[in-house]
Amino acid sequence: MTYSLECPVTGYKETDVVTMAHGSGGESMQKLISEMFAKAFPDLQAEDDAATFDVSGPGQFATSIDSFVVDPIFFKGGNIASLSVHGTVNDLAMKGAMPLYLNVAFILEEGLPLRRLKLLVLLLARAAKKAGIKIVTGDTKVVPKGKGDGIYIITSGIGVVFCEKSLTPGPKKVSVGDKIIVSGDIGRHGMSIMSAREGFDPLRSDSAPLNEMVKSLYDRDINPKCMRDATRGGVAAVLNEIARVKKVHIRIDEEKVPVDEEIKGLAEILGYDLLHVANEGRFVLFVKPEDAEKTVKILQTFKGGEQAAIIGEVVKEHKTGSVTAETLLGTEKPILMPAGEILPRIC
Amino acid sequence: MTYSLECPVTGYKETDVVTMAHGSGGESMQKLISEMFAKAFPDLQAEDDAATFDVSGPGQFATSIDSFVVDPIFFKGGNIASLSVHGTVNDLAMKGAMPLYLNVAFILEEGLPLRRLKLLVLLLARAAKKAGIKIVTGDTKVVPKGKGDGIYIITSGIGVVFCEKSLTPGPKKVSVGDKIIVSGDIGRHGMSIMSAREGFDPLRSDSAPLNEMVKSLYDRDINPKCMRDATRGGVAAVLNEIARVKKVHIRIDEEKVPVDEEIKGLAEILGYDLLHVANEGRFVLFVKPEDAEKTVKILQTFKGGEQAAIIGEVVKEHKTGSVTAETLLGTEKPILMPAGEILPRIC
Repeated sequence: MTYSLECPVTGYKETDVVTMAHGSGGESMQKLISEMFAKAFPDLQAEDDAATFDVSGPGQFATSIDSFVVDPIFFKGGNIASLSVHGTVNDLAMKGAMPLYLNVAFILEEGLPLRRLKLLVLLLARAAKKAGIKIVTGDTKVVPKGKGDGIYIITSGIGVVFCEKSLTPGPKKVSVGDKIIVSGDIGRHGMSIMSAREGFDPLRSDSAPLNEMVKSLYDRDINPKCMRDATRGGVAAVLNEIARVKKVHIRIDEEKVPVDEEIKGLAEILGYDLLHVANEGRFVLFVKPEDAEKTVKILQTFKGGEQAAIIGEVVKEHKTGSVTAETLLGTEKPILMPAGEILPRIC
Repeated sequence: MTYSLECPVTGYKETDVVTMAHGSGGESMQKLISEMFAKAFPDLQAEDDAATFDVSGPGQFATSIDSFVVDPIFFKGGNIASLSVHGTVNDLAMKGAMPLYLNVAFILEEGLPLRRLKLLVLLLARAAKKAGIKIVTGDTKVVPKGKGDGIYIITSGIGVVFCEKSLTPGPKKVSVGDKIIVSGDIGRHGMSIMSAREGFDPLRSDSAPLNEMVKSLYDRDINPKCMRDATRGGVAAVLNEIARVKKVHIRIDEEKVPVDEEIKGLAEILGYDLLHVANEGRFVLFVKPEDAEKTVKILQTFKGGEQAAIIGEVVKEHKTGSVTAETLLGTEKPILMPAGEILPRIC
């Protein structure tokens, strides 16, 4: 794999590794902070354990936290570092929030090569810059060999909500008649990880920040009722969660769910239902019927959104919430909340 | 050990354990969220992956993130769950911020008993309630057996800064003449962990939230120039960090540094310098000379602050920053930034 970096991974020999001393608050940790983190993260408030930021007036903010334990840490189209930025940026974007500040924590396993850490730190900095979020504070812990798995990254973020408070998207805003849209073809991230694990030709993950896509909807007067990035558990989990919260019956047309032929092929071989497979750059939107076509057109102007499509609607109220799909015969089959392991360590 | 809990640890058999399915976004994870997390954390916005909060007007806020990998996870006077609340609350308090919102992420190792997880979740809820911080959002990941160590907890927090922006404490506010105070006797947390690891009679950790102590200073018109909780690396690391940032020479009187006789005894046996040992409920303050006595008196009214004392001062500018201690002979010895491992996995 080749990476084009603003700053090359230099300054460490291949034998330089993370030691327990890097986590113990003394000289080694100070050196790691000043020589690696503070240089890679220009907005880091490295002199304190907390960062401060100003708010200029009243408003609504969003916050989120996510751990990343993906295995392998490099995959086609991304890596644990870029994923850790996109995951949190996207959780904020799903509440209609523009990303502002990111906190980053590393749990490092003793023995991790410092070159590899530096590479991930640089990739993290690049992903944050691209998503327009500032890395302001962090933390580093080291666990003994055998008590971790190289590197786990945890990010938490703060964003400012674009829309008026009464319009903040969420499952409770969903109502009968809403159209359901997916922002692009599904299942790429999960199948990318599985192709890497199984030794197939690697398929590209969809991992990407969604904030610009979301912003463009608000800029063009679309206020989605609810948005959810379809990560672990895939589109099926998202639809079931929302159906349960709002106690509605959701019906989708499986034929309309956009999938790539190559992704579909691998899923069939490995026995996965793509509706259950994780995405890291795709989201599900619930919009008013009259906004549906316009929403799809806006999404389709973005990279990753070319195949955005209306896939179903909220058909009626339902005692516990349910999701079904229309079959070609005109009958309905249930789309269940995924159960069991599905795809472990996908993010 | 006995715990008096608002809610007992029931509903799980001893053989019920965390499985990979609990981390995969499907039915098992939903059940964990609805049956355990949402019940324990009353402010959890469990329906979305991000939480929203309102800000009523202009102001300065603080944010922080910390991972907790302490071993053992239960120690006298605390546990990984309470520590994960105190650590983040204290990082915020050190910037003069009142804690508002907490995000919590769990990295669970496959096989962790669900009873144990529930106990820690309840202890986390109790510590958050006591510190006055609301748990608003979270994340759960599961890693395979042998890739973690039972449980790692990561918290990030948001707080609102008490004081005027120009008075926000930080290392750059320190100046020659400032008095240096510790808020209580030092070294308790590190020695508590070591006593547990070595099989000694357990000594009590100082783990505690510091926000009320800090608030009382501001309420009584004390604006500390700089505050820092003396966690990993202890008081010696804090003093050296600040001396380096501000390029000053700090001199302390080691005789004035408050220590408990039992703590001191264990440190001597194990060969630790208590200035290098972690605290989790003690902080170092830099204040104007005229505020020093009043500050100590306020701190002494708090549990854990009984032995608060002035331990030194900022004596002059210095090219690179240095810390020394006066000896009984009237000479000076260097207090260095701790080097090497010190105490691994102390928090």
